[in-house]
Amino acid sequence: MTLSYDGTRFSGWQRQTHARSVQGVLEEAFRSILGRRVIVTGAGRTDGGVHALGQVAHADIPARLPLPKLHRALNAVLPEDLVIQTLTWAPAGFHARYGAKSKWYRYRIWNHPVRPVMERHWALHVPSPLNLTAMRRCARLFVGRRDFRAFHSSGRCVASTVRHLRQLTLRRNGPWLIIDMKADGFLYHMARRMVGLLLEVGKGRVSPTDCHRIIPPTAPAHGLCLMRVEYGNRRALQKTDRMED
Amino acid sequence: MTLSYDGTRFSGWQRQTHARSVQGVLEEAFRSILGRRVIVTGAGRTDGGVHALGQVAHADIPARLPLPKLHRALNAVLPEDLVIQTLTWAPAGFHARYGAKSKWYRYRIWNHPVRPVMERHWALHVPSPLNLTAMRRCARLFVGRRDFRAFHSSGRCVASTVRHLRQLTLRRNGPWLIIDMKADGFLYHMARRMVGLLLEVGKGRVSPTDCHRIIPPTAPAHGLCLMRVEYGNRRALQKTDRMED
Repeated sequence: MTLSYDGTRFSGWQRQTHARSVQGVLEEAFRSILGRRVIVTGAGRTDGGVHALGQVAHADIPARLPLPKLHRALNAVLPEDLVIQTLTWAPAGFHARYGAKSKWYRYRIWNHPVRPVMERHWALHVPSPLNLTAMRRCARLFVGRRDFRAFHSSGRCVASTVRHLRQLTLRRNGPWLIIDMKADGFLYHMARRMVGLLLEVGKGRVSPTDCHRIIPPTAPAHGLCLMRVEYGNRRALQKTDRMED
Repeated sequence: MTLSYDGTRFSGWQRQTHARSVQGVLEEAFRSILGRRVIVTGAGRTDGGVHALGQVAHADIPARLPLPKLHRALNAVLPEDLVIQTLTWAPAGFHARYGAKSKWYRYRIWNHPVRPVMERHWALHVPSPLNLTAMRRCARLFVGRRDFRAFHSSGRCVASTVRHLRQLTLRRNGPWLIIDMKADGFLYHMARRMVGLLLEVGKGRVSPTDCHRIIPPTAPAHGLCLMRVEYGNRRALQKTDRMED
């Protein structure tokens, strides 16, 4: 299934006992429709406040259920800040997390002296001007297969901090500054730390040549959105031994 | 001043004793900064739930106040769902409501089987397909200077129900259907009733040729947004005897 959610009122993807999580709300919806416990596994474990337009998740459910009917029933019980966009049968062996070949995250910045109103929950407000040229110079340094150790927040166990950052682009559109990041995987807080670093450079606090020398701050969650998860061919859908996001 | 607000948690423009209104919140902000009562007059008295990106309002304040400083101070005390975009001195005799030459309202429809998530508070969800050709045929019948009596909800006193509808266009963009309406003025509920009628036609419940014969339903407020108010030259800014929106 592909999912969209407004992360504002979720504590994050992962089920927690005393907090409202995307996984928990989804599993509760499945339980209420199917009358039994269903485990939902997501491609990316988004943090609290992070949004998604194209999160992918899988669940094991009894075969031959009529999917269009189940889709409508689930969306009817899901809250207004979470919706299932598409629901299809996955190929055998499909795993939403281990099978993901690449992820695309977008960070939205409202770069204008006057704060945003309609978009206040899904854009970071930066009132001061940003040096886009310097930010792009810094961004280019990180594209490629590299060790992103400096962008990894502790708290999650990873086998390797090497990732392949395929794209890191900045685009201005009126007051908007849109940062698109595509990689084969993101370490914990990696997307938000890359934005945090770019903002330090954009504000002139760090020069592009010193990019590699600082520990980047973590940009706020509410500007970040998981746009899409891509899967390869059937072989790529097999479970691999990659254990991280 | 030009204003943007998210109408979701406002009971409407107009000050009310026991409800949260845009006018009331603005006047309270002026009072807290200037230490005295200020009356704020808006170009359009938007209903509860209706949004604005370009509402215009005026207020009489002591001359020689430093406007940029006042602007920042007001925005600092205003709540997150209301912001002053620009604040300038108006020409003598300017009146936000009586001087308005034309208004542009936009209505957003999310026309897709799956409901919207991020845009749920500022788009009407219409899951069934809409006949855009029929809607456009109907729309063309209303452009021009006409009596819009059928689109006027009682409850407000008007001298005349004749208005000049300059533009009524429908544009599809993916799941979005955007309806733009420009007129020299709008009667109470006129914009929402025009959309209500177009939706009846789009759903095939009313044929375009019967457009004139029905009393149109009022489309929900949360899809509507006041985009811009236009003023003419200085003469047009003088107070006129038009007493309606």
